[in-house]
Amino acid sequence: MTVFASPAAFDAALDDLPGANESARQAALERQAQLTKPPGSLGRLEEIAVFFAGWHGTDRPDVTQARAIVFAGNHGVVARGVSAYPAAVTAQMVDNFRAGGAAINALARASGLALDVVPIDLDRPTGDITCAPAMDVDDCLAAINIGAAAIGNADLLVLGEMGIGNSTAAAALCAASFDGAAVDWVGPGTGVDTAGIERKRAAVADALTLHAAAQTPFERLRCLGGREIAAIAGAMLAARRRRVPIILDGFIATAALAPLARAQPAIVDHCLAGHCSAEPGHRRLLDRLGLSPLLTLDMRLGEGSGGALAVQIVRGALAVHAGMATFAEAGVSGG
Amino acid sequence: MTVFASPAAFDAALDDLPGANESARQAALERQAQLTKPPGSLGRLEEIAVFFAGWHGTDRPDVTQARAIVFAGNHGVVARGVSAYPAAVTAQMVDNFRAGGAAINALARASGLALDVVPIDLDRPTGDITCAPAMDVDDCLAAINIGAAAIGNADLLVLGEMGIGNSTAAAALCAASFDGAAVDWVGPGTGVDTAGIERKRAAVADALTLHAAAQTPFERLRCLGGREIAAIAGAMLAARRRRVPIILDGFIATAALAPLARAQPAIVDHCLAGHCSAEPGHRRLLDRLGLSPLLTLDMRLGEGSGGALAVQIVRGALAVHAGMATFAEAGVSGG
Repeated sequence: MTVFASPAAFDAALDDLPGANESARQAALERQAQLTKPPGSLGRLEEIAVFFAGWHGTDRPDVTQARAIVFAGNHGVVARGVSAYPAAVTAQMVDNFRAGGAAINALARASGLALDVVPIDLDRPTGDITCAPAMDVDDCLAAINIGAAAIGNADLLVLGEMGIGNSTAAAALCAASFDGAAVDWVGPGTGVDTAGIERKRAAVADALTLHAAAQTPFERLRCLGGREIAAIAGAMLAARRRRVPIILDGFIATAALAPLARAQPAIVDHCLAGHCSAEPGHRRLLDRLGLSPLLTLDMRLGEGSGGALAVQIVRGALAVHAGMATFAEAGVSGG
Repeated sequence: MTVFASPAAFDAALDDLPGANESARQAALERQAQLTKPPGSLGRLEEIAVFFAGWHGTDRPDVTQARAIVFAGNHGVVARGVSAYPAAVTAQMVDNFRAGGAAINALARASGLALDVVPIDLDRPTGDITCAPAMDVDDCLAAINIGAAAIGNADLLVLGEMGIGNSTAAAALCAASFDGAAVDWVGPGTGVDTAGIERKRAAVADALTLHAAAQTPFERLRCLGGREIAAIAGAMLAARRRRVPIILDGFIATAALAPLARAQPAIVDHCLAGHCSAEPGHRRLLDRLGLSPLLTLDMRLGEGSGGALAVQIVRGALAVHAGMATFAEAGVSGG
């Protein structure tokens, strides 16, 4: 299924983003004020309920089609010694996802999320971004459209990733899209040592120099990203066009937003930051995007794990919003 | 049911606290190291799983009897103008809990918690702590034992409270048990204005002066607390004796620990801080107790609401711990 017919169509979609339904938001705000609790006392749970009201277009939103999608891809930059794990682990983990043995399987079950696993050309790693674009135009557009097609009829999405080497690509995307140099965005990822971090920094610096001409969202994804990252970007943009809220996962999945948000900051409006990763670049990235994480639990796994866990907070928020009595209904003074 | 026969028996129980099962903890740590993820990458979820392993005494802990208990009491100090709501709201909210219309009802349902509501002598408010002890010895011991008896066969507990005026009692308990003056522990509670905060500070300062001789855990609870707070303290200590983990709620429920922790810091070892309330004293109190909250969502409602929400994080942690494959089982490299 082709959602975005060309690179230009993808970039142009960012200039025509639908907004939330303001009257549904307003109705949800009014309902919150009548529920049997001091005003504001449920903090961010109130904000989440109002957010979903706006994007679902109803004053009492419900989530019945929550879905996590894990995209996987392989990265040529692994040849530069940027990961603690061999590239073969990407495919092994895809098998693990399919067998139900990974963290995201357990967390998706616990949060009532359907789980799809979408490996993209694992036997064909991207180009090494230090000496070539990650993808050619057709490959990048195909990955974006795979992501866009994957969202199905979900009414809440968690977009996760698996790809040995992809925290290097994510750092490059962030540095190219926002301020800062390689050193500001590179961290230990799955757990490389000091020498490994130095290799990652060098790889990102080289990639930024080589691809300095990449200035559009599509070109940044194509030159510096990866197939799973481009797919997430495609899914995020397609979800926005259908007003489907996204619970963001960690550094890499959020980095897919970076080139889009650089061109159009409003792209984050249908996103909640599920958590803040222990990977240091994530806090910086969330700051640049203007997002405040729901959870900060020192997680740094990817796979959509932090986003899936945060869905439980969303469910709690929607449960109180829909289920509580008003002051009038309960006969409680002070409403 | 009398769990604690006398004030002295209650205080003495703090000197004989059972610890966690170290071999079960160790076995859980070893299992974590074999699961298909980079070491440490699930952050606090790993810590939670190991914590439950220790208290449940098994390497793969499960929670099947999770229970929230909301204790309610009324406070004579309300006469000092310390609350934004009239004392009648305590009983009205108990009716709301029983009818299923409060936030804790929705959150307990969402988190799979059984919910008990235990009002204690609502028609008999405690003494005004600015000019009398809150309770006499028999009343305080009765409230402690009501709390201790309420825990039933739970394998996870959230202890919540409802009591107009009780953030004033909580501030007094914290100031008496730890450092700081009234000004350091008093906040807006349900939402009093600046003048109301001044009245709360004056009430706490007066109570601290009047009850300076109260130096034991029991005496501090009796002179400065309330029936629902004493019940929570009794439930916390009884839970520890059965090695039942507690997910702490907000400022007031946590303040029940303050006099106990002053006498015996290890009393917090079976407790996780479910969240950090927006009530400013809560952060300070968690710091004094050495606890780091799982959630920080600007909630400030009480009722057990933040603790109930945090149970979802616990469920996620236990689900990944029990459900994930090991490197060997999944055939993934790098374990």
